[in-house]
Order: sequence, then C-alpha cells, then structure tokens
Amino acid sequence: MSAAESDSLRTQVALIGMGTVGTEVARILTEKSETMTHRAGRDIRLKRVVVRDATKPRNVELPAGTVADNIQDIIDDNEIDVVVQLIGGIEPAREIMLACLAAGKDVVTANKALICEHGDELFAKAREQGQSIAYEAAVAGGIPIIAVMGQSLTANQIVSIEAILNGTSNFILSEMLAEGRPYEKVLKEAQRLGYAEADPTMDVDGTDAAQKLVILSQLAFGTKVPIADFPREGIDKLDLLDLQYARELGYIVKLLAVAKLVTGQLELHVQPTLVRKEQPLAQVNGPYNMIALTGDELGRAWFAGAGAGGVATASAVVADLIDTVVGRTALTFRRNDLWSERPSLPVQPAEEISRRYYLRFMVDDKPHVLADIADILGRHGISIASVVQHETPETSPDEANGNCVPLVIMTHTTTEGKLRSADEELDALSSVHPPHSRMPVLD
Amino acid sequence: MSAAESDSLRTQVALIGMGTVGTEVARILTEKSETMTHRAGRDIRLKRVVVRDATKPRNVELPAGTVADNIQDIIDDNEIDVVVQLIGGIEPAREIMLACLAAGKDVVTANKALICEHGDELFAKAREQGQSIAYEAAVAGGIPIIAVMGQSLTANQIVSIEAILNGTSNFILSEMLAEGRPYEKVLKEAQRLGYAEADPTMDVDGTDAAQKLVILSQLAFGTKVPIADFPREGIDKLDLLDLQYARELGYIVKLLAVAKLVTGQLELHVQPTLVRKEQPLAQVNGPYNMIALTGDELGRAWFAGAGAGGVATASAVVADLIDTVVGRTALTFRRNDLWSERPSLPVQPAEEISRRYYLRFMVDDKPHVLADIADILGRHGISIASVVQHETPETSPDEANGNCVPLVIMTHTTTEGKLRSADEELDALSSVHPPHSRMPVLD
Repeated sequence: MSAAESDSLRTQVALIGMGTVGTEVARILTEKSETMTHRAGRDIRLKRVVVRDATKPRNVELPAGTVADNIQDIIDDNEIDVVVQLIGGIEPAREIMLACLAAGKDVVTANKALICEHGDELFAKAREQGQSIAYEAAVAGGIPIIAVMGQSLTANQIVSIEAILNGTSNFILSEMLAEGRPYEKVLKEAQRLGYAEADPTMDVDGTDAAQKLVILSQLAFGTKVPIADFPREGIDKLDLLDLQYARELGYIVKLLAVAKLVTGQLELHVQPTLVRKEQPLAQVNGPYNMIALTGDELGRAWFAGAGAGGVATASAVVADLIDTVVGRTALTFRRNDLWSERPSLPVQPAEEISRRYYLRFMVDDKPHVLADIADILGRHGISIASVVQHETPETSPDEANGNCVPLVIMTHTTTEGKLRSADEELDALSSVHPPHSRMPVLD
Repeated sequence: MSAAESDSLRTQVALIGMGTVGTEVARILTEKSETMTHRAGRDIRLKRVVVRDATKPRNVELPAGTVADNIQDIIDDNEIDVVVQLIGGIEPAREIMLACLAAGKDVVTANKALICEHGDELFAKAREQGQSIAYEAAVAGGIPIIAVMGQSLTANQIVSIEAILNGTSNFILSEMLAEGRPYEKVLKEAQRLGYAEADPTMDVDGTDAAQKLVILSQLAFGTKVPIADFPREGIDKLDLLDLQYARELGYIVKLLAVAKLVTGQLELHVQPTLVRKEQPLAQVNGPYNMIALTGDELGRAWFAGAGAGGVATASAVVADLIDTVVGRTALTFRRNDLWSERPSLPVQPAEEISRRYYLRFMVDDKPHVLADIADILGRHGISIASVVQHETPETSPDEANGNCVPLVIMTHTTTEGKLRSADEELDALSSVHPPHSRMPVLD
C-alpha cells in the first residue's frame, strides 16, 4: 500500500489540553487504538497534543514528538482533520476554536461555558466552513443526552426537560441529608474527596447547571436564552433544616434544572426544588446526573449516569470523535435545530411561573402567628395546602416569648409574583424573623 | 422546480402493517410532515401502506389510493426507497424483508423475534445489497438503547447489561407486591387494562425479554446466542409469598435480563431476580423498561422509559426512518459490530453461573428441619448468609405436626450447579415439602 493510500484510511487528530479529561482521551486512543479503528472504519492517529508545558511529565505514554506547546502547529498542519479541544473557559478557547474551524478542521469539545455563551458564533462559523462541532461531553458527562435529543427523539417535540445536571451539588445535597450535616461541612468533605473543586462557586451557585440547561434548551426548543434571563439559585444558601422538613413531607430537595413549554412560552429555571420521593429524580444520590425528558410521542424517559469525572467525560469525547470520523456528526450537525433559524419562543417572566411552593418561617411560638401569616398569604391570593409546626416543650410564659420555632407551609399552585408581593408584609410581621425559606415543588 | 428536482429532495416510504404501532407511525408522518421534512432535510412521503384488509376503516387519514393489500406493489415500485416493516412473527415477515432488501430498499423494523432469530441472515443480505436495517424499536420501545450502544458508547467495551425488558411482567410484579394479590388475578387485571395480551405467554414466560437480550448482547459482545442456550424463566410461576419475603429482606423481585462478561465468557440469563431496593432497577414500577449498562470507560448508566405501546414504539420507528433518510443508519450499520465477523465468546454453562441465591422451603414446623437443610447445603459447599423463619402461634404438639411454614435462606455466593446437586437430597427430606423456590440475587 502506498503512503497516499494508507493516508486515505487514516484520520489524524490533535488534542488541545491534557487535564483530567484530555489524559483519559489520549489513553483511550492509545490503548484501544485497534478497537477504535474498527469502530471508526479508519485508523485514528493522535498526531499532536498541545499543552501549556510540554516538559511536564504525563500519565499517558505518547510517541516521541507528539507533545508540543504551540497551538499554531495544529492550525498550520493540513494533515490534521479533527481537533479535540479540551481547554475550559471562554478565552482563549473561543479564538482557538474559531481558528481551527477556519483552518478546515472539525472540532470536538467538552467546553460547556463556551458552547453556552458563544455557540451561535461558533456554529455559524462551522456551517460557513462546512465543518462540524460535536459537544456531547459538554452536558452530563458520559450520559449521551445530546445524541438522544438531537437524533433519537426526532419524531418528538420535546415538551419538558427536568434534570440534575451538577454532580457536585447533588453529592452535597445527598450527604447533607444522609449525614445530617450542614452545607459548609459537607462542602469541605466533597473537596477532600475530589467531588468539589477548590473554588466550587460555579458548581454550587447554579451557574454550571444553568449553562448546561441553556444548551439542552436550545437543542429542544430552538431558543437561545442567556443565563441572566431566567431564575438561577444554587445550593450554597440552603439550610439543612429545610432538607429535613421536605423529607418529612415526602420530598427530596434537588438542584433541578427545568425547561418546558408552557402555552407557547418557555419556562426556565435552576433552583433547589422539592421532588416527591417516589420520583426517579429524587432517587439519584451522590455525584450523578439524571435527565428526565418528556416527548409528545415518547412520553417520559430517564437517562442517568456519571455527570462528570475524567473517564466518563472522555467516553463521550471519544464517541464524538468516532462519530466525526465516521461522518455521522456532519449529517447530524447539518440537520440539528440547534442554533437554527427557527423562531425563538418567548421566555416566561419569572413572576408568572406557576407552581406549588414550600415556605419556612422562623416565628415566635405564641398565639396568632399562623393566623397573621395565613391572612397575608390569603390576601395575596396564595392558598395554603398544608402546615407543619412541631410541638415544642412546654415552657413558662416568660421563656416562651423568646422561643423561635420553624413553621412550614406548603402552598397550592401559585405564582412567584404573588409570593414576592406578599414578602414585604410577611417580613414586617414582628413575630416572624426573616429571612424565610422558599422552594418550588416539582409536579 | 422540475419534477426530477423535486424527487431528488423526496424520499418515498412504504409502511407494511397498520396495527397499534403502524397507525401511530402513519399519524406522525402525516400530522408532523413539515417537522419531519425539516429534521430529515428531505420530504418524507408515505406513498404506500399495505395491510391485510384494505377496506377496513383506519384511525388515521391517508391520501386516497395509499392503502393497498398487495406487498408486491411495494417491492416492484422503484420509487419507494425505504420500507417500514411492522408485521410481527417470523413468516411471512422474514420473506418480505428479504424481498425488500433484494429490491434495493432500506428497511426499518420493530420485529424483535425476527431480528433475534434471523438477524444474521437479514443483515448479511442487507450488506450484500448495500442496504441498511434499522431496528431501534425492536428493543425497549421508545428508549433509544440501540443508538446508545451502537453509537454513543463506542469508546467502551460494554461489560454488563442488566435490564427490565418486558413491561407486562414488570407491571404484573409491581401490582402483585403493591396490592398483595396473586399472579393469576393481576394478570387478568393487566389484560383488562391492555398491559397484557389475550395470550400473554411470550411476555410472562420470559421469551420476549430473552429475544431482546439476544439482540442487545450481540450488539455489545458480537456473539449470537440462541435463546435456548441460556437459562430463561418467566414470572408465570411466581408465588406472591416470595415477593413479600424478598421485600422483607430489602429486595424487590424483577424479571431481569442479564448479559455480562465474566472472565472471557458470556453470562446470560432471564430470570426473576432479587434486586436491592436502593438500586435504580428495583425502583422501576409499572409497564416500564430500564436498562443498566456498564461500560469500561463510562461506568454505570441507566436508561428508562416506556418499553412498549403504540406511540412510544412509533417514536423509535420514526427516528430510525429519519436516520435512514439522513444517511446516519447506513454509516452506523456498516460499522456496527452487530452480526460482524469478530470471534464469538463462549457462553458460560448454566451450572457455573456464580451468584447469591434466595431459597424458600415449605417445612414442617418441628425440630431439626433447619439443621437437616443446612447440613445438605453445607455438604454441597453452599454457605448460608441468613435465615428467616417467622414465629408461628404456639399450638399443641399434635397440631404442630401438621403445621407447614415457610423457611427462607439467603446463601453466600454459590453456583447454580451446586444448588442443583443439592436439590435431590433436599426434596428427599420428609419434613420438606417440594417444590421450593429459588431465585438469584443481583449483586
């Protein structure tokens, strides 16, 4: 076989970034090269790996001369067909991806922030160049949710996405409840175990889940919503007390990312949410992800697995690489509604989101407090479904005055707007001690 | 646009069979034709529908002249590119599919029995003709498990499949336990509700689940195993008592289809199995399916949803049709290991399957019975992990002799072979009343 013939059966690949995921991708391509060739129908050769420091020792053995520190080497190399881009953040990742596309290379990436914020620009560039971008690894790690939504559910209009998309938060919530320990202590444990980063902000404040929701929502509904345009709360301000009260009422609190069609509008939010304990979403414990999808034909389906971690994410990256080499990505990319021209749906204003709610007040343990709260809620059109206030030990009248006890109220379906309008009056009650807790309930 | 140009942007499709699934496929293609065209990138035209009785009224409105009763009309029509073949059973489905392939048509099917038993012949024919066969709907209804395994997990060697693949059985098991009602009564209810067919044999005796397992196992391991070559038990002989004892011990009984790699051999079986109640597989109630997959890179992932029903299955059929029209099926079909030439793995002999077991004996409530059973198990190398025998009301010595009580034993890991070898001696004990129950435990 001549060199030219041999090249025609080979795809040369470059990898940018050798962090946790990149190292595993390099290992799979090296260790399993025969299987990967069989599955791709072509030899996949990892020709170049670009890292910040090419002299640093690596956990995976690569042929001499593979590792370099200059991205221009990849961009200028016409033999490289596909670039696996695994550096995080927006810049220089965005510029590098644009340069790779401009140089006629297909791109595989796991960078959710970049796809969330600059997906439209990147996808337009790829289309213009006749190249493709694959990003399965950007959402829910090893769970193939992008393929499921973009390919397997084409007969459906997706009507709702309800998902646990941040493994760190889910681990922390599970541990808080199981061990009866407060947020700060469990966070430290999660950091020690490697489930939370040294700076966990993006995970615990809901940003990471919101970025992933934006990507899924765009794929499902063809509408790009900036993350600033919908309610986003993390788990970092949660009180263990509320997780425990919720459980007593038959619910588990999950950091839930929700996108659904509601009478022609898009309801979107990332919030700690009460999920009935019989629901599959309530039963996912530890650093896992689960996506519950509803399609108008399929009905409800659930997809769960490792939402992060080097190996699971690498599994998705390599699948994307093989899809790109086989030619499936190009076909899917051309057809997907993602970043397409179909008309955008309006986002439902936060005040109009209609759900049941869990409310918890700290109140003085004395007469008429519940009546005062119920009166205010009632005047704002908020109907009470149930109330929990546990008996406290009998004390003398003097002591009782200083006794502050939790009062939990489950509302019937109401709106965020009505609750907000009641807040000022509730906070003004002398026997109620702000702040109070408020979490929506998943129905 | 000339007629020729217009044809080049159109794929003409024929549908064979208008049962529950076929009717829904026709409805989706008709009602959602604009969306389907957008997602396929071509106009998909349902040109011909062949049914046994073309005069029978249908629940879906089709253009005049679409419905016919002669399959030859499809085979002879060169304008028809794809045939959606939705008749069940082996013949004439097999002959029709071979004829369609021979006539140069791609085929989409939901016929699991046919793919299970004649897949090798059909796939060889398709390859020879340069055509493709898509069969997502053959396994687990609307859950896209074939796409997940054949495309999204290409970086992995799948190491185990543990699945609930028969919705009828799962519905019956859930109801038996929830309502405390015996098999026969719940089966009647399931038939009334449409979850079980008038002749439920294939569903409740494990055949349906076994056929689906054969297909998944071939895709995962490249090994075709006839269903006669591995243990297969249904739910039709289950005693409510055993479901209840299992629950007391912390397990839920599920009809589980299992295929896994065990030291170079393939362990395969379909059996009522005890699943720890915390496991996701234990928490699937009602007419649903769940597949728990383990990949060597991905780790464990779960896929659940409606495993049957006209609409959910039609969702998978239409997705396959769009994949075929877009060209993805041809790429995947060419590359899949399914029905490929890779060497087959040997099937682990049933006697060597190594697991923990649940055993339940009906014994006389008198001294030394447990000692006798323990002695026999011990001599056959079977170690007891725990025993449950509930206290019975105190009775006079005379009455006690006629008292027959359940004795439940959980074993440590042992083999089917050892248990079988102990059976004869156990059955010979005068104080033990055969038959006894035996179910494996999922670890």
